[in-house]
Amino acid sequence: MSPSTPASAPASCVLHPSARIGAGVAFGEFCVIGANVSLGDGCRIGHHVVIHADTVVGANVRIDDHASLGKLPMRAANSATTKEQELPPLTLGELCIVGTGVVLYRGAAIDGKVLMADLCTVRENVTVGRGTIVGRGVTIENFCTVGRYCKLESECYLCAYSTLEDRVFVAPGVVTSNDNFVGRTQERFKHFKGVTVKKGGRIGAGSVTLPGITIHEDGLVAAGSTVTRDVPARTIVVGGPARAWRAVPVEQLLENQGWVDA
Amino acid sequence: MSPSTPASAPASCVLHPSARIGAGVAFGEFCVIGANVSLGDGCRIGHHVVIHADTVVGANVRIDDHASLGKLPMRAANSATTKEQELPPLTLGELCIVGTGVVLYRGAAIDGKVLMADLCTVRENVTVGRGTIVGRGVTIENFCTVGRYCKLESECYLCAYSTLEDRVFVAPGVVTSNDNFVGRTQERFKHFKGVTVKKGGRIGAGSVTLPGITIHEDGLVAAGSTVTRDVPARTIVVGGPARAWRAVPVEQLLENQGWVDA
Amino acid sequence: MSPSTPASAPASCVLHPSARIGAGVAFGEFCVIGANVSLGDGCRIGHHVVIHADTVVGANVRIDDHASLGKLPMRAANSATTKEQELPPLTLGELCIVGTGVVLYRGAAIDGKVLMADLCTVRENVTVGRGTIVGRGVTIENFCTVGRYCKLESECYLCAYSTLEDRVFVAPGVVTSNDNFVGRTQERFKHFKGVTVKKGGRIGAGSVTLPGITIHEDGLVAAGSTVTRDVPARTIVVGGPARAWRAVPVEQLLENQGWVDA
Repeated sequence: MSPSTPASAPASCVLHPSARIGAGVAFGEFCVIGANVSLGDGCRIGHHVVIHADTVVGANVRIDDHASLGKLPMRAANSATTKEQELPPLTLGELCIVGTGVVLYRGAAIDGKVLMADLCTVRENVTVGRGTIVGRGVTIENFCTVGRYCKLESECYLCAYSTLEDRVFVAPGVVTSNDNFVGRTQERFKHFKGVTVKKGGRIGAGSVTLPGITIHEDGLVAAGSTVTRDVPARTIVVGGPARAWRAVPVEQLLENQGWVDA
Repeated sequence: MSPSTPASAPASCVLHPSARIGAGVAFGEFCVIGANVSLGDGCRIGHHVVIHADTVVGANVRIDDHASLGKLPMRAANSATTKEQELPPLTLGELCIVGTGVVLYRGAAIDGKVLMADLCTVRENVTVGRGTIVGRGVTIENFCTVGRYCKLESECYLCAYSTLEDRVFVAPGVVTSNDNFVGRTQERFKHFKGVTVKKGGRIGAGSVTLPGITIHEDGLVAAGSTVTRDVPARTIVVGGPARAWRAVPVEQLLENQGWVDA
Repeated sequence: MSPSTPASAPASCVLHPSARIGAGVAFGEFCVIGANVSLGDGCRIGHHVVIHADTVVGANVRIDDHASLGKLPMRAANSATTKEQELPPLTLGELCIVGTGVVLYRGAAIDGKVLMADLCTVRENVTVGRGTIVGRGVTIENFCTVGRYCKLESECYLCAYSTLEDRVFVAPGVVTSNDNFVGRTQERFKHFKGVTVKKGGRIGAGSVTLPGITIHEDGLVAAGSTVTRDVPARTIVVGGPARAWRAVPVEQLLENQGWVDA
């Protein structure tokens, strides 16, 4: 990375003198770049983008208008899962795309080639693997692990303490949950557990998963289902509550897609 | 509150001369503060924040990037519930937290210690009680009353003409509705009614409530349910359509939480 | 339209010299107006609004804070439906209202008197007919056709390759889908098909439609349903999977509303 070249930014931008700006970075108007931010070569930054202190952005990342990166968590006295802590800086790998109005928290670690579409949010203490797509309006709450080459389609909701392995597909409007006590008892804090989706598992549009559900390898939840028990590998479940229906068609199994990492 | 001290704001901010800025208020870059706005002592304002005319913000409120406060309603010829009217200014109590990209309307009255997470919206003619959490992406439509110490979790939707009493819990992705005529007939305008949730009532993740439903004290809707009739007190309902299943466990009753107002 | 009058904008705005600004246009602070943008007479632009190159905005359009218009699509290697292409400029007809934080893509064509509420998104290769309401947080994905005088209520999700004819009503939180193969097989690309709703069709709150469903004239999906087969004209379907329940009440039929185009 070349030394800071604030000369490349419009006069309307506010770049902290300690920010390290790579070669060929293009800025829109009215951007705010905080202390110790590092932007890799060739990044393209939109208008009104805010990048908070210490954020590390890899090379050739596109960040669209009104995105806010590296935000510090908001603490509320009666929030169940956000604790005081020292968070590491937000990191984004190379070739990521960050949509308009996206909010990324300090304490998230996002690998290369991740697409974060407009108005999505990634909270603190989250990792997102290479090549994953985080759809429009998606929420990834804190303490989640998302694997490589996953697709989280528009408006799905990944609750805190969830784990998605590689090549997981979450369809639009899916809602997950993590609290069997629905906000009551002290006991509940010991049991928070979101959804776990093993490699190649899929959740259909508008489905709801109860707390602590595991969807095993290549398991599939049909659209509109309510999942109250674990989903066996290579099995389609359907309904409310969801019941085993039939095997996943062979041609849909992950091993038969011929996909290679990119 | 001390007299206006625009000297404390960055040169990039546009503060109306009539705005009253409390002691120790910190501004980010490119903020726009309208006429007659009042900001209490110790507020922390992010970047690109807009506060429209007449808004009153209490002391020690945090407002994050790209939030827009005090917005005037948008009128459409064929909107069913927004009427021409004089709205009182937006008010926020002390110690509120306003997330990134939040939109708050003129005509909302928000009590102290309310957390409004990123990208939520609170419309006009709404009151929100002390200590309530309005989650990420939540919509509170117009003509709603929300009590104290409620939790409206991420992405839930509170339709117009809804009432939540104190300590109500609405899980992620809940959808409420208020129009039994589904957008048809002139008759419908007389009957709009959202959900009413009595003290300590709870609605599980991804559930849907039909228009005019009442959930009585400590009633609980299980996740993924469709609620077509009122929910009795201290009763769990489940399914589509939701049926009474069993009593709420004693240890989950509101009276057994030992919660005190903060 | 009068010649460009940048004098009418605050000094904080960045207007490209080639932008054509109509008579009486009012700008908020920190707006960015790109090359060859055309704004009709009497437009009212909020603060921090971005209008990208070539966008054509009709007369008397209101655009609220932090909206971003004319955005170029984001391409990802593993996205299924976004192809490289030349997109025509975004166009908005007269008297539209664009809410706070709205994102409109280059390649959308939006007719007059359309209300796009806060935080909604309209993607490329979409047309929206006159007088339609696009609610708060709504997503209209690419390759959709939306007719005149439709209502897409808050937080509903219209997937790619969907068609809504005139006077269609989509209630809050509706989720549609278009991929029967749930993200697997090459075969799926030939079969993507969203929802088709014929004139006057209605979808109730929180319902889910499977790929390729057609809802015929004046058909109605009850709230909370999962629609797995086509909905006959003038018929109410309900449940998961949705079954025919009864005829739509005569007084709710579109022909009995006395509505005229405005």
